[in-house]
Amino acid sequence: MMSQIVEKLENIVGRDWIITDIDQKLGYLYDEVEKTLRPKADENSIVVKPANTEEVSEIISTANDNGINVVVRGGGTGLCGGAIPVKESIVISMERFNKVVEVDLNNMTVTLEAGVTLFDLIEELDKYDGIGFPVHPGDEGAQIGGMAVTNAGGARAVRHGIMRNHIKGLEVVLPNGNILNLGGKLLKDNAGYNLMHLIIGSEGTLAVITKVILKIYPEDKHVATIAAAFETIDNASNAVLEILRSGVSPLAVEYQDKHINLETAEHLGLNWPLETGNADLMIIISEKEEDMLYSSTRKINDICRKNGCTEAVFAGKKQEQADLLAIRSGGYEVIKDIIADSFDMCVPPASMPAFFEDLGRIMKEYNTTTNITAHIADGNVHNDTVLVDGKIPEYAEEIKLKMYEACFKYGGTITGEHGIGKIRVEDLKLQKKEEELEIMKGIKAVFDPNSILNDGTVV
Amino acid sequence: MMSQIVEKLENIVGRDWIITDIDQKLGYLYDEVEKTLRPKADENSIVVKPANTEEVSEIISTANDNGINVVVRGGGTGLCGGAIPVKESIVISMERFNKVVEVDLNNMTVTLEAGVTLFDLIEELDKYDGIGFPVHPGDEGAQIGGMAVTNAGGARAVRHGIMRNHIKGLEVVLPNGNILNLGGKLLKDNAGYNLMHLIIGSEGTLAVITKVILKIYPEDKHVATIAAAFETIDNASNAVLEILRSGVSPLAVEYQDKHINLETAEHLGLNWPLETGNADLMIIISEKEEDMLYSSTRKINDICRKNGCTEAVFAGKKQEQADLLAIRSGGYEVIKDIIADSFDMCVPPASMPAFFEDLGRIMKEYNTTTNITAHIADGNVHNDTVLVDGKIPEYAEEIKLKMYEACFKYGGTITGEHGIGKIRVEDLKLQKKEEELEIMKGIKAVFDPNSILNDGTVV
Ligand SMILES: Cc1cc2nc3c(=O)[nH]c(=O)nc-3n(C[C@H](O)[C@H](O)[C@H](O)COP(=O)(O)OP(=O)(O)OC[C@H]3O[C@@H](n4cnc5c(N)ncnc54)[C@H](O)[C@@H]3O)c2cc1C
Ligand SMILES: Cc1cc2nc3c(=O)[nH]c(=O)nc-3n(C[C@H](O)[C@H](O)[C@H](O)COP(=O)(O)OP(=O)(O)OC[C@H]3O[C@@H](n4cnc5c(N)ncnc54)[C@H](O)[C@@H]3O)c2cc1C
Repeated sequence: MMSQIVEKLENIVGRDWIITDIDQKLGYLYDEVEKTLRPKADENSIVVKPANTEEVSEIISTANDNGINVVVRGGGTGLCGGAIPVKESIVISMERFNKVVEVDLNNMTVTLEAGVTLFDLIEELDKYDGIGFPVHPGDEGAQIGGMAVTNAGGARAVRHGIMRNHIKGLEVVLPNGNILNLGGKLLKDNAGYNLMHLIIGSEGTLAVITKVILKIYPEDKHVATIAAAFETIDNASNAVLEILRSGVSPLAVEYQDKHINLETAEHLGLNWPLETGNADLMIIISEKEEDMLYSSTRKINDICRKNGCTEAVFAGKKQEQADLLAIRSGGYEVIKDIIADSFDMCVPPASMPAFFEDLGRIMKEYNTTTNITAHIADGNVHNDTVLVDGKIPEYAEEIKLKMYEACFKYGGTITGEHGIGKIRVEDLKLQKKEEELEIMKGIKAVFDPNSILNDGTVV
Repeated sequence: MMSQIVEKLENIVGRDWIITDIDQKLGYLYDEVEKTLRPKADENSIVVKPANTEEVSEIISTANDNGINVVVRGGGTGLCGGAIPVKESIVISMERFNKVVEVDLNNMTVTLEAGVTLFDLIEELDKYDGIGFPVHPGDEGAQIGGMAVTNAGGARAVRHGIMRNHIKGLEVVLPNGNILNLGGKLLKDNAGYNLMHLIIGSEGTLAVITKVILKIYPEDKHVATIAAAFETIDNASNAVLEILRSGVSPLAVEYQDKHINLETAEHLGLNWPLETGNADLMIIISEKEEDMLYSSTRKINDICRKNGCTEAVFAGKKQEQADLLAIRSGGYEVIKDIIADSFDMCVPPASMPAFFEDLGRIMKEYNTTTNITAHIADGNVHNDTVLVDGKIPEYAEEIKLKMYEACFKYGGTITGEHGIGKIRVEDLKLQKKEEELEIMKGIKAVFDPNSILNDGTVV
């Protein structure tokens, strides 16, 4: 089957832009999901690298006509196997969609081809004094199309929300090859059902995103980072609630277990400045005026102290702040090899202290531990079940169900930001009623009647 | 048919909550769309007033089983005939869904039954010092469910966006009677396709909204209003663009032709303070600190002056400001009887001066005028075709198409906020590709296979 299709693909993109060699292919067949959870890729899949929307349209309609599965690959930084072709597939790599089409300072938008990475976007906007894009998931190799279709979150959601809040327009290719332009540089648009918002978060199962229009914003000039240590995660999470209530609006409020910060710092050859306690907050503040920065800092410091903070440092210099952030962002790297299962639950922010208590209780019950990092002010927790003697423990499934149960008690979700992908399709059934899943499947069938687009993902 | 169904409905809601008498019914059969555009209601329709979600579920599944059309009625303030039952229908009035379920100051959310009006919500939040909800369409009789399902906009979208940005959760009833809870008090939720965002803007054609969770926010303490007169709308719109670029973030920037302001003031027995020029801006500024309010005011004043402002007044007192807003909001009332057709086009903000120029050119071509009010900083224009000798002019369709053409040139939409309803179903085909409309129809069929929910609306 695939050998017949190669010729057709060659006619579309040219021989140079197809990979069939297994060694060269491997880098395109996996994403960043933990090894223990990683679905196996079908290595007969072919990688193809279209240059433009018309080529994507031709590839996908060819696949549709021949009943071949298509998996779109963005930056490959996903954490739920979304970009892994688990059956024989055409993998469309978006890497050649790398042009910044337009920065429009009058409408404050940027138009990007879908394969532009977050890194490239930041670099581009740095050319314009004081203009930025606020959403920042932890790996800047993520592509804007990938971030849009997974509705990425990241550290700054507490103030700026998630991708969905900043996407103004999409160009997409449907499984039958049709090209649609959705939204635009508009503040308001109520013309019919909003297909753009349906595609945001659809994880490459409804359409291929080829172009994205994002809002851009004036950036605050004054930025500082506070790192604060607490004896327990309960103290830390109570401090966060009080900060949120105080009217200060931090740019990011991140939590990480101290032992992860220390190990990551060592791994990166950096210094984590807090020695006491077990639970560390990293709070980024940004303001238009310097006065405001100091007044916010003071408020936050006072609140931390009132809630049992054992020590705190203030970082004002760019490099110091970058180092702290690198340690927080690098945490996943140092723990990922000891993980049996990892989570992305999200509960209402005010339920965090209670939810952490539940997690503690469950760990005790199984006489085990969990590593916690969290976008704590968003109610979004990344924790894990750890390997025991290098193996997935027998109770892995059971302990997961207990954690989900606790999460659902607060009206929480099993995935705040990473998505369902291929690893949480079964788990989704625990959260959603059959009736809701049926509607999702119906929508999938409307966009993709032959189910050729990333089959086995989400629904 | 209907007489048989009345008994079933009586069993569900009780005899007191059904209206079959024509005189009593009439108030439930029309919305606020202009008389000239108003579709005729089928007066055999029955009005029913359920008390809770279960009753809605029973009513709608009864209708579904019997193939009877259902129209949900909110506040009836809609401007596109959405709530008008154009075929024999069960009209579900949501007026008894009037409870504020919970104000949660820890998560900064409010949970409301869908029939709570905007007026009631504002009154409720006034009890909590300094807490508010930012979206404000012009008629406070609108219900929160209606505002959610139409994705209402209003005057404060320039800073705060539209309903979609502030809705956290919905309880909805599907046409088969199933009840779903979508979203919640979560900052992040990527568990499957986002049905909540699909229902927002679906204008009562996919599901009945019975409960809404909204974000609430600390409100700025210091508020002022500037009214500024300009010779021409071009001057006014250039001033607006410069304000947007200046970094000031006004709460609202509203435009209205001076003659409308003067007539409305007279109609309301109020005083419009500007006498010169033809084009008036009303700019509301709100800030946390008083200093900021004055510095923003100064900046805006300077920009207005540079752009040919002929006079400006500053209103700091609450009543003065309320009067100005009442005049701006009341404009529709005084012109609605001279209107043949009315519009809600939206273009990218930076295209407003050029779009106004186009409108002027088109009016000249037909030797006629148009009345303009606009959420000008959003790019959202409400203008009209006027009656000639009390009649719809022959060129009405032609001039509309010319205006749409101008709007599409800038990537605009035929409806920024009022929606498609029943009056723009044909027009939607001018804006959207057949392929996109097909997807919308497919989605409609997934939710509502028998097309019993507001048939003939949107798609
Ligand atoms: C160290 C690290 C930290 C992270 N931190 C965060 C975080 O804080 N918040 C967060 O939300 N995520 C985080 N992630 C996850 C990941 O970065 C995001 O999900 C990101 O949005 C994925 O983008 P990508 O381009 O790499 O997508 P990929 O991994 O390539 O693909 C993800 C899914 O999207 C689909 N897809 C990709 N591009 C397209 C397209 N153009 N059209 C249609 N479908 C497409 C794929 O088929 C797949 O299903 C992190 C990952 C790592 C490794
Ligand atoms: C003077 C005036 C000024 C206005 N200004 C603005 C403005 O600035 N911005 C703006 O966006 N709009 C404006 N509007 C329009 C209108 O107020 C909004 O569209 C509002 O959101 C409608 O709410 P409603 O409850 O009155 O809905 P209705 O008119 O009762 O219904 C509107 C549609 O929603 C459906 N619907 C209502 N409730 C539900 C429910 N619970 N579940 C499912 N479907 C439902 C109906 O079937 C119908 O299709 C204005 C109207 C007037 C009269």
